[in-house]
Amino acid sequence: MVATSTPTATLSHLQCKECGAQYPLAAMHVCELCFGPLEVKYDLAAIRAQVTRETIERGPHSIWRYRAFLPVESEQPIDLGTGMTPLIRAERLGRRLGLRNLWIKNDAVNMPTLSFKDRVVSVALTRAKELGFTTVGCASTGNLANSTAAIAAHAGLECCVFIPADLEAGKILGTLVYRPTVMAVKGNYDQVNRLCSEVANSQGWGFVNINLRPYYSEGSKTLGFEVAEQLGWQLPDCIVAPLASGSLFTKIHKGFREFVQAGLVADKPVQCHGAQAQGCAPIAQAFAEGRDFIAPVKPHTIAKSIAIGNPADGVYALDLARKTGGQIAAVSDPEIIAGIQILAETEGIFTETAGGTTVAVLEKLAKNGHIDPDALTVVYITGNGLKTQEAVQGAIGEPLTIEPQLGSFARAWERSQTLERLEWQEVLV
Amino acid sequence: MVATSTPTATLSHLQCKECGAQYPLAAMHVCELCFGPLEVKYDLAAIRAQVTRETIERGPHSIWRYRAFLPVESEQPIDLGTGMTPLIRAERLGRRLGLRNLWIKNDAVNMPTLSFKDRVVSVALTRAKELGFTTVGCASTGNLANSTAAIAAHAGLECCVFIPADLEAGKILGTLVYRPTVMAVKGNYDQVNRLCSEVANSQGWGFVNINLRPYYSEGSKTLGFEVAEQLGWQLPDCIVAPLASGSLFTKIHKGFREFVQAGLVADKPVQCHGAQAQGCAPIAQAFAEGRDFIAPVKPHTIAKSIAIGNPADGVYALDLARKTGGQIAAVSDPEIIAGIQILAETEGIFTETAGGTTVAVLEKLAKNGHIDPDALTVVYITGNGLKTQEAVQGAIGEPLTIEPQLGSFARAWERSQTLERLEWQEVLV
Ligand SMILES: [Zn+2]
Ligand SMILES: [Zn+2]
Repeated sequence: MVATSTPTATLSHLQCKECGAQYPLAAMHVCELCFGPLEVKYDLAAIRAQVTRETIERGPHSIWRYRAFLPVESEQPIDLGTGMTPLIRAERLGRRLGLRNLWIKNDAVNMPTLSFKDRVVSVALTRAKELGFTTVGCASTGNLANSTAAIAAHAGLECCVFIPADLEAGKILGTLVYRPTVMAVKGNYDQVNRLCSEVANSQGWGFVNINLRPYYSEGSKTLGFEVAEQLGWQLPDCIVAPLASGSLFTKIHKGFREFVQAGLVADKPVQCHGAQAQGCAPIAQAFAEGRDFIAPVKPHTIAKSIAIGNPADGVYALDLARKTGGQIAAVSDPEIIAGIQILAETEGIFTETAGGTTVAVLEKLAKNGHIDPDALTVVYITGNGLKTQEAVQGAIGEPLTIEPQLGSFARAWERSQTLERLEWQEVLV
Repeated sequence: MVATSTPTATLSHLQCKECGAQYPLAAMHVCELCFGPLEVKYDLAAIRAQVTRETIERGPHSIWRYRAFLPVESEQPIDLGTGMTPLIRAERLGRRLGLRNLWIKNDAVNMPTLSFKDRVVSVALTRAKELGFTTVGCASTGNLANSTAAIAAHAGLECCVFIPADLEAGKILGTLVYRPTVMAVKGNYDQVNRLCSEVANSQGWGFVNINLRPYYSEGSKTLGFEVAEQLGWQLPDCIVAPLASGSLFTKIHKGFREFVQAGLVADKPVQCHGAQAQGCAPIAQAFAEGRDFIAPVKPHTIAKSIAIGNPADGVYALDLARKTGGQIAAVSDPEIIAGIQILAETEGIFTETAGGTTVAVLEKLAKNGHIDPDALTVVYITGNGLKTQEAVQGAIGEPLTIEPQLGSFARAWERSQTLERLEWQEVLV
């Protein structure tokens, strides 16, 4: 089934990123001529004519304030308050890393399911309803399953999600609670993804990141739009974001470009750095080796939410980093855990392994001089630490157990202070 | 140590709720004459003169847009984006419960630590800095420890938190990650609380919910302010909120009253209903028995975050429910789990046990005719389900495990659909 619908004022058509072939705004994602990925095209003149900073500021406090830039037609999109997450000035983390103008875009508190996926799913399911789908699904490393199940529940859509069987407990439970059908596939994400392509065809369902992918992926542009608006209508000098499929990374940059084209911000180069885990770093490897193709890998890392061995938009991510003078770097699992800890200790933000990866890469790039200490740098934190508790369980110590008496407290406090002093002395020796 | 500071234009003094004795704006919470609790008083004429709907709407998208109504003096309070959580129209839950104008105030996605406690802690720690404290702490059932540790980390304050030793894993880990000192006390919350009073005195620390309590508790008023603003500057007809100490409940109402007094909304009665777990329901018991005093109980319920057996503001909560024509009802642990599930399935919101309690009480009150089906009803969801995963673990089923092949999927799907049909037939029989 290929549902279609008529274009609106700002929405134009689907277009192949490789050969430029044009298609109607249907539930399709691959070019029939060259198998390239399809992307949504807009009538930018129409957007320019109707959108100003003021119209955006008067809009809802969610991604839907940027509706003219999003691939939907509904006047009432699905809005659970998704987006407009805080952009926090990170003075304490910045001091630790020697960066004097560091900001955190905190999607660890995105609504409703605490990851950036709520952005892309809100867009995809709004479009799914427009295209007439009644059952939706996804191939997920966890966060996407949480988000699809929750937003489908709110919208009253039937839902069937597919995950690798070895996911973190918090991500499985945080999906099941919304009562979708959950298929735990014995295999890695890339196998799950292939299976879902077959199911999309055989069942005629709307898979947010497969046949609805052109619409879905546009949702990530809002992470570019919001940062530009929250910085007082200007672009940052430099961003650091995690790379899974590579889509998020390229769409943030697309968001910046569209704001420039719409006359909302001044043009300016933005250095785009990407972060991967060493246990699944096909894009970082291609970057390091100067290749322009991605060699798929078998993932083995605690950063499961970004463990995509065969990234669909890998080459575009690679190209973007090179074109903007950015780096694509990878960090080890222990560095990822340390990244989670340093962010929590300095800024009070508890992120999952993907965020730990991004912070660890930020640290590495700052140390190696790849980030100018005075550059306005934005680091994207994309998910919440409560979903990957296993990752830090052994690394963050234990509470001091005491009796409910002042004397018991005083002895424990004394011991803990002595231990801290000893640790400091070791550091100094 | 009693730190004090001079009043600002809107902030006036502390006043005993029982005998009316006045005190300076110091770190104190108990009347020296009658041992009654102290409350912050404002110069309401000054507030009226400087605050309008427009000045609020132009303010930050956080609790600090209501700064004139909050007990701080800083021009730069600690702002991690706390507050302004979504108020969601709950059509699907409303249909299930027979309520035609139901709204959810969703603090399960409050920032930074996913509970309403971020509101009270942001206020308390801003005040703590003003009063010169460098070490802060709290007595907590979990959420408050998460919040105090996170916001203290961001603000660069030393932190020591006290929790009952038997808390949920997610709440302990979600505190430790910020690197405070964590004291796990072998005892229940009421014992933890008593111990903290002694520690506050002996160490000269700022405990957010003890010696800073008059400032801290004012933060909950923002749950009243925001609902009134988000409803288009009007009060609801009816609210349902969880009762732990009783403070949240009474402060929501205080927020409504202050908005009326400041001329921001029209006056109107608001029916205030309170929710408790049967395993710790001292306020509901007093309500049912027509008593005007609270008999302390020993908590035994999965709803640990609201399990306070000797609630500090219990009598005020009791009084408020009676005065406004509200009910205080209690539900069993299985009903609490069902409450979590129904909210997730219908609205895509995953709440912790406190939220399950509130939804279950809402359901009970709707069934018993205590809530008018056409009343504009707001239910307060105060914390996130990822923190109390144990509570639903056994109750929400398991994924269907399949091989990464279409045939394996098709068989599993067929089986699940047959099972669902059978379940429906059972329901119909
Ligand atoms: Zn093509
Ligand atoms: Zn008194």
